[in-house]
Amino acid sequence: MVALYLAGPDVFLPHAQAVGAAKKELCAAHGHAGLFPLDSDLPVASGAGVATLIYRANIAMIHKSAAVVANLTPFRGPSADAGTVFEIGYALALGKPVFAYANVAADYRARVIDSHGPLVATAAGEWACDGMAVENFGLHDNLMIAESIAGQGWEMIVHAAPAEAIFTDLQAFEACLKQVSAHFRA
Amino acid sequence: MVALYLAGPDVFLPHAQAVGAAKKELCAAHGHAGLFPLDSDLPVASGAGVATLIYRANIAMIHKSAAVVANLTPFRGPSADAGTVFEIGYALALGKPVFAYANVAADYRARVIDSHGPLVATAAGEWACDGMAVENFGLHDNLMIAESIAGQGWEMIVHAAPAEAIFTDLQAFEACLKQVSAHFRA
Repeated sequence: MVALYLAGPDVFLPHAQAVGAAKKELCAAHGHAGLFPLDSDLPVASGAGVATLIYRANIAMIHKSAAVVANLTPFRGPSADAGTVFEIGYALALGKPVFAYANVAADYRARVIDSHGPLVATAAGEWACDGMAVENFGLHDNLMIAESIAGQGWEMIVHAAPAEAIFTDLQAFEACLKQVSAHFRA
Repeated sequence: MVALYLAGPDVFLPHAQAVGAAKKELCAAHGHAGLFPLDSDLPVASGAGVATLIYRANIAMIHKSAAVVANLTPFRGPSADAGTVFEIGYALALGKPVFAYANVAADYRARVIDSHGPLVATAAGEWACDGMAVENFGLHDNLMIAESIAGQGWEMIVHAAPAEAIFTDLQAFEACLKQVSAHFRA
């Protein structure tokens, strides 16, 4: 049994607790223990603010986990949720394996075109309407994200979920759990 | 002299090398050594792809640095650049101090309203048009980002740069260098 920190913007869903419960059930079905960010009991008596307590609780859960399964589905822009991306960087530096999935198939460049309009191509590269270069490596997100997953020896799971289900479809999440099992069995 | 990894979406500017040089000059003026992501000489002979080499070079520079100064100015959405956010998580887990700034003063909630339109308020929270909750802690970004900086004992520098200079104005960057000096002198 592997303790898995379940990172992702799932916590922002109206039915976040139900999605967390469904993810934890799938973890259990694969013989693992899922830790969902909303699991933590925040100490009410502390003088610190709620945001500080959530931060500390999430960091403590990452330390307690043997690995992370991250939902890198694009969130409010062409990249993954900032909190999730922070957490995968943090976990990797601790030497914990990170498994990741996204429920949108288009690559980063295609998503910038979708959100920002056509790119301008010059000899020096391709530029979005914000005047900044657009990475064109065929990767799913900023290269630091995509390469951090691939650099461990497995690929991020990219799945084209129906538009209305990109934050609830758990098929790619379950594929990550199979990667987890294979990794820890090896 | 402190070796500082200079994280940020500055690398996507058309004149990225010039901005990197200006940042390194400011570091030197404050007695520090700036390491800019584009500094690395990528080994051309390697079989790995360019994205892989850039990833490895950036990770190596973070390991070589004593601290990170991160540009968390919002990039292609209401949050900071995903690569930069990954890097601050990575550095913090290594125990390296992270100093950060943003050149846009509006907080995260205000920026989501700006990019996604008015929020819908219910007893359970505030919701954006994407159907997902919006954090309302008065923080500058996702709480994992904002709290990770504040949790070290200093604040992120937030500066209202002119709209045309949000990726080039170095006033807040220089304020971070003063935080660096105070931290390492203490």
